[in-house]
Amino acid sequence: MAASLPKAVVLVSGGMDSCVTAAVARESHRLAFLHASYGQRTERRERQAFDAMADFYGVEQRLVVRLDHFRAIGGSALTDERIAVPEGEPGAAVQSREIPPTYVPFRNAHFLSVAVSWAEVIGAKAVFIGAVAEDSSGYPDCRPAYYDVFGQLVRVGTRPETQIAIVTPVIAMRKSEIVRLGRQLGAPLELSWSCYQFEDSACGACDSCRLRVRAFAEAGIHDPISYRARIER
Amino acid sequence: MAASLPKAVVLVSGGMDSCVTAAVARESHRLAFLHASYGQRTERRERQAFDAMADFYGVEQRLVVRLDHFRAIGGSALTDERIAVPEGEPGAAVQSREIPPTYVPFRNAHFLSVAVSWAEVIGAKAVFIGAVAEDSSGYPDCRPAYYDVFGQLVRVGTRPETQIAIVTPVIAMRKSEIVRLGRQLGAPLELSWSCYQFEDSACGACDSCRLRVRAFAEAGIHDPISYRARIER
Repeated sequence: MAASLPKAVVLVSGGMDSCVTAAVARESHRLAFLHASYGQRTERRERQAFDAMADFYGVEQRLVVRLDHFRAIGGSALTDERIAVPEGEPGAAVQSREIPPTYVPFRNAHFLSVAVSWAEVIGAKAVFIGAVAEDSSGYPDCRPAYYDVFGQLVRVGTRPETQIAIVTPVIAMRKSEIVRLGRQLGAPLELSWSCYQFEDSACGACDSCRLRVRAFAEAGIHDPISYRARIER
Repeated sequence: MAASLPKAVVLVSGGMDSCVTAAVARESHRLAFLHASYGQRTERRERQAFDAMADFYGVEQRLVVRLDHFRAIGGSALTDERIAVPEGEPGAAVQSREIPPTYVPFRNAHFLSVAVSWAEVIGAKAVFIGAVAEDSSGYPDCRPAYYDVFGQLVRVGTRPETQIAIVTPVIAMRKSEIVRLGRQLGAPLELSWSCYQFEDSACGACDSCRLRVRAFAEAGIHDPISYRARIER
């Protein structure tokens, strides 16, 4: 990568969307990887996926933050063990316009805030995030309007000379298109982790697993990770 | 306080602006207090001021979060000991339109994000923050436009049924007016802490101390906290 390329902070959760987003960012930017652990059920496994992807791309600037307050705040199946992770039809919430219990209240604002603070200090010109709007779980903080407003917030809330674009390269794609794009760009999808429930092999039944399984099936590409039970639809 | 009043999350740093903001919020809301430690120099002293104010108002719902990543990110005199806290004319930056070195990049977005997540889970209808725009240090994330945009972000980024107003009751006031309002509402200004540098007695020389000293002097009210050296202007 040429040193003259601008720098970008990429939010890398360790899932397939952030994996492909990193591959897109790399086409035009030098990479700095940011990961947030927030007491979610599969925290260790996601961190492992992050490290593996950062190694894969030879990323030197890495920041891993702990946002422990999400557990104290609760209100989500991902951070409160008393709330079950639903197993069922993927994207059912999208059709019903209901927000699923895996929604972590206002979560992406925390991630983006850390990314923008870090970007401002290290001189990055963009923050990439792998949000997906339609073909996803139906979280309110994954819609294009949300990122447009966040971009405005960055313009009014940072130093006048700071220019940081919020970039969402896969937001309008179907999940199967994201898989195909990842394959095309050589993204290490085998290193990514999507399951909300388990850390050894994926459950195949949670919303996130089902969306992933369906995406690979639609793309006609073999999903290289292992599942306890895979429900092809 | 009547149980029928709506609930509000108040961001209480422990300084005089948040102290008076809490007093304003209490007029119309049941209080939930939120405090963030972020590795700033006077972290322990500010936390002590927060606890004392929460006790003063008998606040039961309290959340204290640690945002340790600010130290890792750095870029501010408040979180990086290699960058000096300037001692000089208060508000000089405002006149010159320069952002002072005590600016913590994009800090208030982190605080507001935690406040909104918590507000959504506990059913609070408002988040109060004691930002001051003109008569202050000149931070970009203290201007009215910033809070307008953050309000939009909350509307697009939370559950459709969630209604959380971002309220900045002292944003347009002079610091001396804030002192007077605090006195009028019985706010415990004696419990507040403003100094950026020290935790035992205030330095009297940093930007924050100078703004405070000037505010009390202009208001004609005795500042009850103790200073190492007080420079009345």
